[in-house]
Amino acid sequence: MKLNNLQDLLIHELKDIYNAEQQITKALPKMIKAASSDTLKQAFEEHLMVTEKQIERLDNVFDMMGEKAKGEKCKAMEGIIREAESMMDERADASVMDAALIASAQRVEHYEIAAYGTVCTYANQLGMKDVLNLLHQTLEEEKMTDQKLTQIAEKSINLKAGR
Amino acid sequence: MKLNNLQDLLIHELKDIYNAEQQITKALPKMIKAASSDTLKQAFEEHLMVTEKQIERLDNVFDMMGEKAKGEKCKAMEGIIREAESMMDERADASVMDAALIASAQRVEHYEIAAYGTVCTYANQLGMKDVLNLLHQTLEEEKMTDQKLTQIAEKSINLKAGR
Repeated sequence: MKLNNLQDLLIHELKDIYNAEQQITKALPKMIKAASSDTLKQAFEEHLMVTEKQIERLDNVFDMMGEKAKGEKCKAMEGIIREAESMMDERADASVMDAALIASAQRVEHYEIAAYGTVCTYANQLGMKDVLNLLHQTLEEEKMTDQKLTQIAEKSINLKAGR
Repeated sequence: MKLNNLQDLLIHELKDIYNAEQQITKALPKMIKAASSDTLKQAFEEHLMVTEKQIERLDNVFDMMGEKAKGEKCKAMEGIIREAESMMDERADASVMDAALIASAQRVEHYEIAAYGTVCTYANQLGMKDVLNLLHQTLEEEKMTDQKLTQIAEKSINLKAGR
């Protein structure tokens, strides 16, 4: 199907994000298991619940646009998660592994910040206020998660990892 | 090799970024070719030059740390670029393709913002002022590139892509 306009591209991007979010829900339980710090485990657990809500929000967005909620393999998220999995296979001290898990999770977050930033811009330019409202809620959540992970890293995990 | 501390992890992350930057220098010429807008072509050309300087900066960082400048396959960037290539294979109106190229480029930028953000935090916590200074310059460049791409999208490309 040819992409003729910004609305076609918006739908294309939303399918990419929908699949990316689904991949994240499968990756997070492995990251929770690999984490040693309780604070970090809890942050990942919270993010898993938030991600499930974000998928529901995308279901609503597709519904508003009269489109079937459907993902299209997000090759980028596949690569980002593959890299996180390689990291989990490395031999590392527990706190160093926790620091590395945060680094991986922040790459995931930034993919989402870029992707939601893009679809928010499209929805805004297309005058789709209700769609924009939902997507913007998720964008803000992703930015907050990223900041929270930075705090956990700087104030606790990285210090434990030692020099 | 086991990762025993934050410095080991810093070197591990720098190798990831080094390879990611190299992949970007190979991907950008394809994106320049696929772009129709002169403004966008020029932005990508500028970014290619900036990326080459960023690689030199990483060479200096490895040197300062007494490490050999060496990349390790960045699977995440591989996925992000694979997705951009799939996008370039789609059938799309010229301006819609330009908008999609910006979306892909911003995913690349955000990967770099996350990755450089992480190594800046590590360098700071390890008290490596000179290393931090170089890495921070690049982090700021990546953020500026991301903002510039948003401006090009909002003020020109997305409007041309039409509804």
